[in-house]
Amino acid sequence: MAVYTDVAADELAQFLDRYELGELLSYKGIAEGVENSNFLLHTSTGTFILTLYEKRVAKGDLPFFLNLMTHLAAHGISCPQPLRDKQGAALGTLAGRPAAIINFLEGVWPRKPNVAHCAGVGQALAKMHLAGQNFSMSRANALSVSGWRPLFETAAPRADELQHGLRAFLAAELDRLEDGRWPRNLPQGVIHADLFPDNVFFLGDKLSGLIDFTFACNDMLAYDVAICLNAWCFESDHSFNVTKARAFLNAYGRERKLSGAEQDALPLLARGAAMRFLLTRLVDFLNVPPGALVRPKDPLEYVRKLRFQQGVNSIRDYGVEQSGLVA
Amino acid sequence: MAVYTDVAADELAQFLDRYELGELLSYKGIAEGVENSNFLLHTSTGTFILTLYEKRVAKGDLPFFLNLMTHLAAHGISCPQPLRDKQGAALGTLAGRPAAIINFLEGVWPRKPNVAHCAGVGQALAKMHLAGQNFSMSRANALSVSGWRPLFETAAPRADELQHGLRAFLAAELDRLEDGRWPRNLPQGVIHADLFPDNVFFLGDKLSGLIDFTFACNDMLAYDVAICLNAWCFESDHSFNVTKARAFLNAYGRERKLSGAEQDALPLLARGAAMRFLLTRLVDFLNVPPGALVRPKDPLEYVRKLRFQQGVNSIRDYGVEQSGLVA
Repeated sequence: MAVYTDVAADELAQFLDRYELGELLSYKGIAEGVENSNFLLHTSTGTFILTLYEKRVAKGDLPFFLNLMTHLAAHGISCPQPLRDKQGAALGTLAGRPAAIINFLEGVWPRKPNVAHCAGVGQALAKMHLAGQNFSMSRANALSVSGWRPLFETAAPRADELQHGLRAFLAAELDRLEDGRWPRNLPQGVIHADLFPDNVFFLGDKLSGLIDFTFACNDMLAYDVAICLNAWCFESDHSFNVTKARAFLNAYGRERKLSGAEQDALPLLARGAAMRFLLTRLVDFLNVPPGALVRPKDPLEYVRKLRFQQGVNSIRDYGVEQSGLVA
Repeated sequence: MAVYTDVAADELAQFLDRYELGELLSYKGIAEGVENSNFLLHTSTGTFILTLYEKRVAKGDLPFFLNLMTHLAAHGISCPQPLRDKQGAALGTLAGRPAAIINFLEGVWPRKPNVAHCAGVGQALAKMHLAGQNFSMSRANALSVSGWRPLFETAAPRADELQHGLRAFLAAELDRLEDGRWPRNLPQGVIHADLFPDNVFFLGDKLSGLIDFTFACNDMLAYDVAICLNAWCFESDHSFNVTKARAFLNAYGRERKLSGAEQDALPLLARGAAMRFLLTRLVDFLNVPPGALVRPKDPLEYVRKLRFQQGVNSIRDYGVEQSGLVA
């Protein structure tokens, strides 16, 4: 949860004058998004989300995120669309921060994803990958394999505070992930890179939208699949749920077939994906600033997931046959 | 800001089945209320606020708060009204906590109250006091003068960590407030007891509603006036704004005349009110639990206010003549 910056009503009213949104009726800071401050706005014309981008988000990346949402929405993906002001700009400044308004998506994110939710996100992820194919902008993934060692160096000296032996465990895994086997020739495109349950809305079991493209970037599409496997297919006791994985992968494959090479790479990509979230969580956990209004996520959850992925031999361990997915 | 308890969608849907609110479309934890977890709900029939009462609120007090809102709303006060479920109950249980749904009030709380806001809150406070006169329930004020020494004892050992000499300053003031001069015979009634700017909504300069009755209780009506003087009539540099105080007191007096005894007591009541918020803020400040998602409010703001009130001789120092307010 996060509201880092409060906004005065008169400042906000002045900002809203740039748009054609009618009169401001209310705004509430909402407990969504970890990187930014988000407010739910009611105006006389509807409901909207106002985001103030805090310093962890590079201002130069904002046009990528905003244009991507516009592009995806124009290509049939249910996701928020940035509103343009009277001059046509999607990005402004409020309370000294870059700020944008997006339309409000109804829906509820699943606290305990079920099999139908996993199938829904598999289908939506594949559709998003296809819709992103002709998006003209690009953004490198700063949190791919080359970004992990700096995170490790930051966290390593204190990693064992969290779990005895964690530093050595991470060092060994990082050496392995950096040994040249990380795939380079798999199909690339725009990935969401953070499609956790709290970024996917449902009405009942029906997916109603994808949100929060603050980590979106260009990378291997199958890496996005790997991130979701970790994020959606484990139970709260950290056990892997093969039924959910099968539902997720088959739903993905019905929209976009994974190539044989992608399928072969998936266990390694899932190890890398587990490493990436383990490291950022660990850095965040060890660096919660005093007075922060954010409860850091548990790094150890991703230690468990990484250990599971280390034991996976092929996608058969995810509950699917290669043949069922090959193009 | 506070969202202490998250709620799963299926739990929430089950809870909502008890009401006739239609289908759940979305819910967001909102950054309002320090004592409870609050969610903004959209359903197919409208917008509502769901409150989960956390442990700092005594369950036995909840019927007082909920019935008071119903009573005040029925007597012309714009405040949230608790929704009754199909069995007529305003209070249920969700995620192991007492829970209630109230209707959503549009409006924006003033981050920088102006003179018109101060007049608005003065008028609304007086109307609330009048509307509460025939409310049948009662609740003692646990945070009146007899409640301050226990707070002081809790905070005293570490008070000087915050400001050198603070412990002695508080001890001397508390001795004085307890010396028998605290008024006992002023007009009593239901007071809000926490009518800070974030609990008063406006649309433009027009007051649209009062919220958060979690501290409401029976006490001297003029004590509520004193709380508001401290909460509304100081600038962010801690200077007292006589123009705002005059607007506030005159607007109050037009709806409900303050008696001569109330006017005489107001400076002392304002010292007590400053002490009460100073002490609770100090205790909270010294006891922020690890992982709390609450930024404690600054106790020193109330040290400054208390020092100001110590120097007040009569309500003339608040910018009004006694004659202008006497009944």
